[in-house]
Amino acid sequence: MALLYKADPVRGEQWKRLFAEHAPDIEWRAWPDIGDPRDIRYLAAWQAPDEIETVLPNLEVLFALSAGVDQLDLERLPTTLPVVRLLDPGISQGMCEYATFAVLGLHRDMLRYRQQQAERCWQAHRLVPAGQRRVGVLGLGLQARNILAALQPFGFALSGWARSEHQIAGVACFAGAEQLPAFLGQCDILLCVLPLTDQTRGILNRDVFRQLPKGAALVNMGRGGHLVEADLLEALADGQLSAAVLDVMEQEPAVPEHPFWHHPQILLTPHIAAMTQPESAFGVLLENIRRHQRGESMLGQVDRERAY
Amino acid sequence: MALLYKADPVRGEQWKRLFAEHAPDIEWRAWPDIGDPRDIRYLAAWQAPDEIETVLPNLEVLFALSAGVDQLDLERLPTTLPVVRLLDPGISQGMCEYATFAVLGLHRDMLRYRQQQAERCWQAHRLVPAGQRRVGVLGLGLQARNILAALQPFGFALSGWARSEHQIAGVACFAGAEQLPAFLGQCDILLCVLPLTDQTRGILNRDVFRQLPKGAALVNMGRGGHLVEADLLEALADGQLSAAVLDVMEQEPAVPEHPFWHHPQILLTPHIAAMTQPESAFGVLLENIRRHQRGESMLGQVDRERAY
Repeated sequence: MALLYKADPVRGEQWKRLFAEHAPDIEWRAWPDIGDPRDIRYLAAWQAPDEIETVLPNLEVLFALSAGVDQLDLERLPTTLPVVRLLDPGISQGMCEYATFAVLGLHRDMLRYRQQQAERCWQAHRLVPAGQRRVGVLGLGLQARNILAALQPFGFALSGWARSEHQIAGVACFAGAEQLPAFLGQCDILLCVLPLTDQTRGILNRDVFRQLPKGAALVNMGRGGHLVEADLLEALADGQLSAAVLDVMEQEPAVPEHPFWHHPQILLTPHIAAMTQPESAFGVLLENIRRHQRGESMLGQVDRERAY
Repeated sequence: MALLYKADPVRGEQWKRLFAEHAPDIEWRAWPDIGDPRDIRYLAAWQAPDEIETVLPNLEVLFALSAGVDQLDLERLPTTLPVVRLLDPGISQGMCEYATFAVLGLHRDMLRYRQQQAERCWQAHRLVPAGQRRVGVLGLGLQARNILAALQPFGFALSGWARSEHQIAGVACFAGAEQLPAFLGQCDILLCVLPLTDQTRGILNRDVFRQLPKGAALVNMGRGGHLVEADLLEALADGQLSAAVLDVMEQEPAVPEHPFWHHPQILLTPHIAAMTQPESAFGVLLENIRRHQRGESMLGQVDRERAY
């Protein structure tokens, strides 16, 4: 019985050591040295190999090494193969740090001050109390709820939107397409942590920006595919949006000629909000393997219908 | 019985409205139209007038409109005149927002990413878990304790240093000159919120930087006078420090030729971490006036010996 690892080889060495120490009963193999493919029961991967059912005939579970699974072509995977997302607490921590940094930075006009520093301009701007700053999160899954909890002590007026209804103490929750306009109309800072699916692709577009209060700011920590990049440039140019913090791009790495690089109203980071850390993720992955061995349900199993 | 206001006239209009509405028994006067100076019992000011005992013969209390009083020449004020700092919760909130933004930004390499964005470079760097990031605060007064409380949920390893001994849950507290080296030796991020006094002037200097771990980062939210600016440039150049976030300068506004403006490892903001907000500060000031009228001690009264 073996687990096949198919992702970054440097971190693979860390994973390998953790398995050797804490789960010696699970044989470790690293792509492409898969040995006898019939031994492989578990695949831990960023992307799946083509024709997975032929390559790994006895595969029982595909563990994605990421919180999102949009990089997998779910329709090409056997419908009977369980796909499990990685709900790494290290990822949650990274998301909270980045989101708090981004929201506080936008709240305190830090892109404007960045530009002023470049122009050697010493000028203070009006400080809006946090209680008058409305921060809305698109998505109310685990990451979103952790982020909202991290923002709560600062006293922001918080809200969130999801497809289905939620109740979160201290957070105004909006649900479904019919409540999206009401949600957007009260977001001074809009933060996207949605999963990328056919339903959410391109959700950050001109129509949505127009429904935000004039001068609102955007944080995209979801996927580049959520954002219609040309619409963001237009909204920044006409003042509908004042600033954006982007950790993801439609094409990564961003090409050198991309207009986001030198845009004074955009803070662009190279997809670093959160990274899977073997130290914190190992326990979660192993727990799911043990659950599967005991015939129990696994945490983070993807609903193939919803695609997350 | 009147209160004389001597500070920014725009915010003066906000103060005036608040007094008219909530404390009509206290007559409001704004410098320089002081009327009969013998009526003036209270002075609310950023800076005191010269020869204050002659100009305002019946003055009972000087209320500084700031959390620090280093802008006042305390030695030229009558020793019997109580001087009271403004412990505005709005200032605390601003300090917490700025400190959290600065610490998260340094923790997550945001000055490096700012530089990479300018250079169109898409490259991620190793993410250090917050639990392995040691954040130390110079000063353990009200602002410092609020900042430490704001940083606590992120899981940083927190410490603080002050002249006298303190006990704060979850914070390693160091006291006095003899424990300063031990404190500095374990600060990956050093944050200064000390008051500016003869004892603390120039405390952020080459000798202190040398005692920090190699590559440490600095946040100065105290006063420009705490920092020896040439020593910071030297420490950044030789790699002893990796980055600095500065909200204050020895000379404000910073002159256009100052080397901090275009330094890639310095984030410079124009003294905006916190601003006294009449909305939140009014209640604190009025409470102290009422305490004084009842013969009770006031909150934030300056110890003339310590100078804060």
